[in-house]
Amino acid sequence: MSESSPMNAGDGTYSYTKNSTVQRDAASGVNDAIREALMENLDVEKLLGGSTTFTIADLGCSVGPNTVSAVESLIETVAHKCRRQGLDPESLEFQVLFNDQIGNDFNTLFASLPRPRSYVAAAVPGSFYGRLFPSSSVHVAYSSFAVHWSSKVPEELHRRDSPAWNAGRIHYSDSSPEAVVKAYSDQFQRDMESFLGARAQEIAPGGAIVVVVPGVPEGVVTYSGGVAFSFLEFILAEMVREGVIEQEQVDSFNVPNVYPSVKDLRRVVERNGCFEIVKMEFRDVGVGEVEPENVIMLIRAIFEGCMANHFGTVVVNNLFVRAMRHKLQFAAILNLAGIEGTVSQIMAVLIKRN
Amino acid sequence: MSESSPMNAGDGTYSYTKNSTVQRDAASGVNDAIREALMENLDVEKLLGGSTTFTIADLGCSVGPNTVSAVESLIETVAHKCRRQGLDPESLEFQVLFNDQIGNDFNTLFASLPRPRSYVAAAVPGSFYGRLFPSSSVHVAYSSFAVHWSSKVPEELHRRDSPAWNAGRIHYSDSSPEAVVKAYSDQFQRDMESFLGARAQEIAPGGAIVVVVPGVPEGVVTYSGGVAFSFLEFILAEMVREGVIEQEQVDSFNVPNVYPSVKDLRRVVERNGCFEIVKMEFRDVGVGEVEPENVIMLIRAIFEGCMANHFGTVVVNNLFVRAMRHKLQFAAILNLAGIEGTVSQIMAVLIKRN
Repeated sequence: MSESSPMNAGDGTYSYTKNSTVQRDAASGVNDAIREALMENLDVEKLLGGSTTFTIADLGCSVGPNTVSAVESLIETVAHKCRRQGLDPESLEFQVLFNDQIGNDFNTLFASLPRPRSYVAAAVPGSFYGRLFPSSSVHVAYSSFAVHWSSKVPEELHRRDSPAWNAGRIHYSDSSPEAVVKAYSDQFQRDMESFLGARAQEIAPGGAIVVVVPGVPEGVVTYSGGVAFSFLEFILAEMVREGVIEQEQVDSFNVPNVYPSVKDLRRVVERNGCFEIVKMEFRDVGVGEVEPENVIMLIRAIFEGCMANHFGTVVVNNLFVRAMRHKLQFAAILNLAGIEGTVSQIMAVLIKRN
Repeated sequence: MSESSPMNAGDGTYSYTKNSTVQRDAASGVNDAIREALMENLDVEKLLGGSTTFTIADLGCSVGPNTVSAVESLIETVAHKCRRQGLDPESLEFQVLFNDQIGNDFNTLFASLPRPRSYVAAAVPGSFYGRLFPSSSVHVAYSSFAVHWSSKVPEELHRRDSPAWNAGRIHYSDSSPEAVVKAYSDQFQRDMESFLGARAQEIAPGGAIVVVVPGVPEGVVTYSGGVAFSFLEFILAEMVREGVIEQEQVDSFNVPNVYPSVKDLRRVVERNGCFEIVKMEFRDVGVGEVEPENVIMLIRAIFEGCMANHFGTVVVNNLFVRAMRHKLQFAAILNLAGIEGTVSQIMAVLIKRN
C-alpha cells in the first residue's frame, strides 16, 4: 500500500470537493499556457493514425469539480486543433480515464460527472507510479497537483539513527538538515523515474504529458506549503506539551510531499529520454485573497487522510480545531512570508518521442 | 435516472458482496458452456487485427467476488484460444472494464480486485442500455444476472386507470392480468433493443457478447424469483393490514425485473440483426441446498435498494425482519414450488457480424 492518502471524500464541509478552489484557480492560471503548447505540438491526425477515439487520462484526479473542468478544457483544445488540421472533431469520440489511488472516492467522482457529457468516462484505480493503461493507448495524460505526493515517505526518515531522522518536524524546509532534504529529493527522482517509465509505455508516440505541480524556483525554501507545515508543526508541538500526543509520534511522522524545481523535474525527464520537453516553466499564480480559515480548511481536506493514518482521527480533529483557534497567527505568518494569495507551481508539457 | 437500484453496497452482513453465492454457483454452472462457445467462435488473431490489447467488459458487474472470477475465467479462455491459434498470450495485455450504474459501490469493487493482477482495470459508470465505450473498442462483453433489471418500471403500471395497474402485487406471475405481463415483456424488448444497439457500435467485428440472465423455459410462471415476489407481497399485505404502510404504497410499487424466455431473447437479437447467435439455451442450474434464511438475505441484498427508494429504509428493514420471522413458511412455499436449490437461467453467446 502506498503511504500517501486520498483527499477527503464525499462533498461535506471538510471534503476536497468543497475545499479545492485554490487548486482550481491555480490550475486555471496555467491553462492558457497548456492550451498553447498543445496547439503547437500535438499533431492530432498523426497521433490517431486512423483511429477515431481520442483518449485522455487525468492522473491523480481526486474528486470534485477540478478534474471535470480540466478534461473539458483539454477536449476543447484537441477539438480546436482538429479544426485547424482540417479534421471534423465531431467525427472523434473522446474517452476520459480518471485515475487515482484505490482509496479515492470514485463514487462521489462519478456522481459529479456532467450528464450528458461529450465523452465516455472510466475510472482507473491504482498508483500512477506504476502501469495503469494498455500500451500506447493514451493520447494526452494530464496530472495536476498530484506528483508532489511521493509513493512513500523516504525510508531514511524512519530510522532514528539516520542523519535524516526528522525529529519534531513533519516535512523539510531551508532550515532542515541536508540529509532530510536529500532524502526527499531522491524520493522525487525515484518516483518520477517510475512515473515516466510507465507513461513511456502507455502514451502513444506523439502524445503528451501535461504536468502541473506545486514547486519552487530553486532550492527548497519558498513554497507556501512550507508555511503550512511549519504551522502544523507548531500546533503538534503544543499538543505534545499538553500531553495530548507523544513526542515520538511527531518525530516519526513525515508528509510524503516533495515540491520540485524546474531543474529537478528537467533532470529526471532528460534521464528518462522518452519525452521531448516542449514547455517547462516555474510561475507564481495569483489565486486572489484567501481567508486564513479557508487555507486551514484546504490544508485539512488535503492532509487529514495521511495525518489520521498516523495520529488517529481524534487527534487530527483536535489539531484542526486548534488550527482554527490560531488562525490569526497563521494569517500573520502567511503575511510575513509574503506568499498569501499565490501558488508557486511548475507546468510542463512533454511530447512522447517516436 | 434509472429506477433500478444497485445491489447493497459495502461488505457488511446485508451486502451483495456477502450475499451473492447463489449467483456465483449459478454462473459457474454455465461456465463450461461459455468457454466452449468462445473457444469455437472467437478468432482472437482476426479480432485483434494487430493490436496487443484485448478488452473485456463486465456489464452490470455490481460488487463482490463474482465479477472478479468471471473476468479471470474469460481471460483464461482467451489465453487458451490464443495458444490454440499459435499466439503467445503473454504478448497480449488484457484490459477489463467493470460497468455498473453510477450508484454502484465502485470503491468496494476496486478494493476487492486482486493485487497484483493479470489485467489493467477500469470502471465505467452508467446504464448499459446506453453507450458506455468507444466504437469497436470491446472484444468480449459479458453480462451475468443483470439484463433482467429493466431500465424502468413499464409506464402502464403507474396509471391507476390502465389495465396494467398492478394492485396489491409487486411483479407479474401466471395469475397476473395479460396487460401486466405484456407491459413487462414489452419493456424487456425495448431495453434489449437499446442494449444491443449500443453494443453493436462498441463491440469490434468478430467480438462476442456473453449474456447470462435468470429466465424461464417459456411463458411467465416458473421462475423461482416469482416465489420470492409472492412472499414479499404476502408480507407487504400483512404490513398494510397492521397499518404500517398504505395499500396505495403497495399498489404503486413494482419491481423492474423481467425474466425472459429463449424465444423472447432470440426475437430481439434477430430483430437487431448485428449479432450471430452461436449459443442460446435455457437451463436449470443446481446451486445445492440453500437455507431459507440465506435466500431471504439474498433477496434483501438484491431488492433492498429499489424497495427503500419507494417505501423508505425503515419500512424495508421492518419488512425483512418480518420475512425472517416467516422463514419456515417461505421454506414450505419454496418446497411446494419444487424449485429449491436451482436457478433457471438463459445463457447466450452472440458474435458481432462484420
